[in-house]
Amino acid sequence: MSLSEIQTTLKGKLRQFQDFPSKGILFEDIMPIFQDPKAFQLLLDGLKLHLKDKKVDVIVGLDARGFLFGPALALQLGAAFVPVRKQGKLPGPTVQAVYEKEYGQDIFEIQADAIKPGQSVVIVDDIIATGGSASAAGELVTKIGGSVTEYLFILELLFLKGRDKLNAPVFTLLAGQ
Amino acid sequence: MSLSEIQTTLKGKLRQFQDFPSKGILFEDIMPIFQDPKAFQLLLDGLKLHLKDKKVDVIVGLDARGFLFGPALALQLGAAFVPVRKQGKLPGPTVQAVYEKEYGQDIFEIQADAIKPGQSVVIVDDIIATGGSASAAGELVTKIGGSVTEYLFILELLFLKGRDKLNAPVFTLLAGQ
Repeated sequence: MSLSEIQTTLKGKLRQFQDFPSKGILFEDIMPIFQDPKAFQLLLDGLKLHLKDKKVDVIVGLDARGFLFGPALALQLGAAFVPVRKQGKLPGPTVQAVYEKEYGQDIFEIQADAIKPGQSVVIVDDIIATGGSASAAGELVTKIGGSVTEYLFILELLFLKGRDKLNAPVFTLLAGQ
Repeated sequence: MSLSEIQTTLKGKLRQFQDFPSKGILFEDIMPIFQDPKAFQLLLDGLKLHLKDKKVDVIVGLDARGFLFGPALALQLGAAFVPVRKQGKLPGPTVQAVYEKEYGQDIFEIQADAIKPGQSVVIVDDIIATGGSASAAGELVTKIGGSVTEYLFILELLFLKGRDKLNAPVFTLLAGQ
């Protein structure tokens, strides 16, 4: 199946919920993709098609929805999976980055020895909104010696221009929702 | 590889951290398993060996570490993956269950239409401690018509006797750590 056929099929699996999580927001629910193993494999196939000529040593996934497909993508690429989590969730020496949220700040962590210097890293999450959390994840990867090759998302809130915050190529599988 | 060989190999991947997340606790870090695609596949193979004679329609994973391997396990079994999340994270009609934490209570949710009546459901998480969150997940599955066939964990804090709270068989892949 071509990338555009995969995209059309997957867009058909999304469900829209008006006014979630707050009034005026149209929320795209990706959970139906994970309820259908054929659709989930298509999601992975689409991301793998996009990455096929790239070197990927590590997939870094953001807590929690980046965990839904990041580990399975890493497994099928033969790459490592490394999580970025909120402060206090990961044991051992960690490195931290602060990011801005709608109200206040939050702190992300990565295990300091999770990536070897020079490894090629792809950062994944379900959606890019303001880009704050993805940018913080990129900062963490760089701090521990990794090289951010690309950011991958399933969805993108284009009007927030989050991709402008990121200093590596950005690919959104189902952009333009 | 036999189940016991898989277990020995995976136990060798765990790292121990003393006094995390609080003093007196020896924390078993499962993240090295996800950093090694061969070990991650062994983890899935071990769980699949255990499930090989069982009907599994749906894997339900608990937020967030149940997301690390639940979706990949579901994919390889040809089953659906459905998340249980903290209140306010899932769109559309949801069903709720309260569970006790060390300090106070928390609320879990599942999407009300995520499981079809009578489907055979396996609930997964990385570790069973007091069993409170797993028990709440079981309550949610039952409320929306699913049948809990089994609970699967990677690790278990045996002295907390969490499995006594659960009303379906419990399997811990790396029990006795």
